[in-house]
Amino acid sequence: MTEPCRIILDVDTGIDDALAIVYALAHPEITLEAVTTTYGNVDVEQATLNTLALLQAADCLDVPVAAGAKRALTRPYNKRGSRIHGPNGFGGIDLPSPERTALDTWAPDLLIEMAHKHPGKLTLVPTGPITNVALALMKAPEIATLFKRIVIMGGSIWHPGVPRIPSPMADANFFNDPESARIVLQSGADIILVGMDVTMKTLFTDAMMDRIEKQGGFASRKCAEASRFYLAAYRDQYPDITGCALHDPLAVAVAHDPTLVTLEPMQIDVECAGELTRGQVIPDRRRTGTTIPNAAVCVDVNVDRFVDGFVNRLATFGQDQVAL
Amino acid sequence: MTEPCRIILDVDTGIDDALAIVYALAHPEITLEAVTTTYGNVDVEQATLNTLALLQAADCLDVPVAAGAKRALTRPYNKRGSRIHGPNGFGGIDLPSPERTALDTWAPDLLIEMAHKHPGKLTLVPTGPITNVALALMKAPEIATLFKRIVIMGGSIWHPGVPRIPSPMADANFFNDPESARIVLQSGADIILVGMDVTMKTLFTDAMMDRIEKQGGFASRKCAEASRFYLAAYRDQYPDITGCALHDPLAVAVAHDPTLVTLEPMQIDVECAGELTRGQVIPDRRRTGTTIPNAAVCVDVNVDRFVDGFVNRLATFGQDQVAL
Repeated sequence: MTEPCRIILDVDTGIDDALAIVYALAHPEITLEAVTTTYGNVDVEQATLNTLALLQAADCLDVPVAAGAKRALTRPYNKRGSRIHGPNGFGGIDLPSPERTALDTWAPDLLIEMAHKHPGKLTLVPTGPITNVALALMKAPEIATLFKRIVIMGGSIWHPGVPRIPSPMADANFFNDPESARIVLQSGADIILVGMDVTMKTLFTDAMMDRIEKQGGFASRKCAEASRFYLAAYRDQYPDITGCALHDPLAVAVAHDPTLVTLEPMQIDVECAGELTRGQVIPDRRRTGTTIPNAAVCVDVNVDRFVDGFVNRLATFGQDQVAL
Repeated sequence: MTEPCRIILDVDTGIDDALAIVYALAHPEITLEAVTTTYGNVDVEQATLNTLALLQAADCLDVPVAAGAKRALTRPYNKRGSRIHGPNGFGGIDLPSPERTALDTWAPDLLIEMAHKHPGKLTLVPTGPITNVALALMKAPEIATLFKRIVIMGGSIWHPGVPRIPSPMADANFFNDPESARIVLQSGADIILVGMDVTMKTLFTDAMMDRIEKQGGFASRKCAEASRFYLAAYRDQYPDITGCALHDPLAVAVAHDPTLVTLEPMQIDVECAGELTRGQVIPDRRRTGTTIPNAAVCVDVNVDRFVDGFVNRLATFGQDQVAL
């Protein structure tokens, strides 16, 4: 038995961020309390626009959205994601323009406000560069323990990293802002790390997209359509795998049900200075007796249980919705 | 069928270096053509003394010995090894003083000279910080391909690193001189990397030492005696393993018979700049189509075949020797 789960998503929407948002909306035991946005797959303005448009497409206009960081702590914004997520971050697929705008509140301030308002109740799920969370922690370190948990999509312990960056063992999120990742990992929060070691096993295939396009409501169908672009980019980038990775949806699923994964408590840090290792997660797994685990790292995942659940939820979400 | 193998050992003797030397001497299909010495487990003077004393104890006075680097390229010598190898680098066990001294030739120059004299014939086996090899390559880059192969004891891809250094995923040899490791890895030599991923699986136990002490000749017995210190240090450092690692002997064995290990070609480099990663091997295992493997990395080992062979050779080596 799993418990109902109240989450805040911090996203750089992004195709798999969109999938994560719709999955959260579609899941009966998950309540999406708010979405904060950041740069990453696209710039923060586009990420905010995509998020608002998607929530509207899903007929969920009551979820607050706040925009946050425009760039990493120590580097300018680098638009690297268009190859994977398309020029608009949604595979070039258009959604109806959103009829509302984001809150006036700065995303890190919304995180602080909500953590204080619902102590111990909210799980924060950052799926992009983790700058908003780091900035919130710099202002209000106490929120580390006011969140029930922070489930981070980022990092890799053993899996090769993403192509086309100088660090061959880093994922894109931690590479984009390792300093922020370090702030969060050292914050004392209850952290689960959902990294490429597991997310690269959870693949979204053409056949799954077919089913969602055939059965799902408007938002699900648009996400499946956008995912064709993501899948093509994956085929180009990883010729030997058969789908595109469900990075961000897996983080949402783990926030709700950690039994989907095998967790290993580790003391981890992020290299911020290396030539070849900037953004790489460095575990201290030496049995020295002096290490103190600061994160539960996902080392394996029940692929079928997660992927089947994901596809079923998207395929049935919004079926009763009036066509837009 | 394996071929006879002519090797040069580059060592920082050190208990497991001593085991590697005696194993090379004891193996009927291995010819130890020379030994060069370096700093590491002990300073280079002590490493040279230990090497000369051990060769004398083994009645092998015809193996040339040349002393080399006193320190790493960019750092002063740091005596860190005494906890593992004892104050004299041989577990506090005394050997008869050597009656000869090292050659006047500087170790890197001996490497260059021998590579030119026997092109394609010699396998170089560095088991300490790899400074001598790097210096030889800086002077004479052509020796990279004049050696038949370089079998390096160093690095770790997945296994946790050695205790008490700032890089939690680095082995001691590469941590001690990452710049030299990079020079060697980029040299174009045919390289096999024998790292902690495999050496930490090949354990030397009390019972094996008992057998060698009971049956072996003088040099083997002294090595087994010294290994008791090494084993005690391991028990202290790694409470959950039952023996001490045969790091350096495994490198010698692989030089002679690579079928003892599973090799995976990888493009690898060594981080020289990181805060947490200085000396860590960084593989680029991304399927980008642009990586070019520069080393065959040992990812698994036939533990029993290697360890049994090792113990048998040491237990029978020098049985016919006149007691010293």
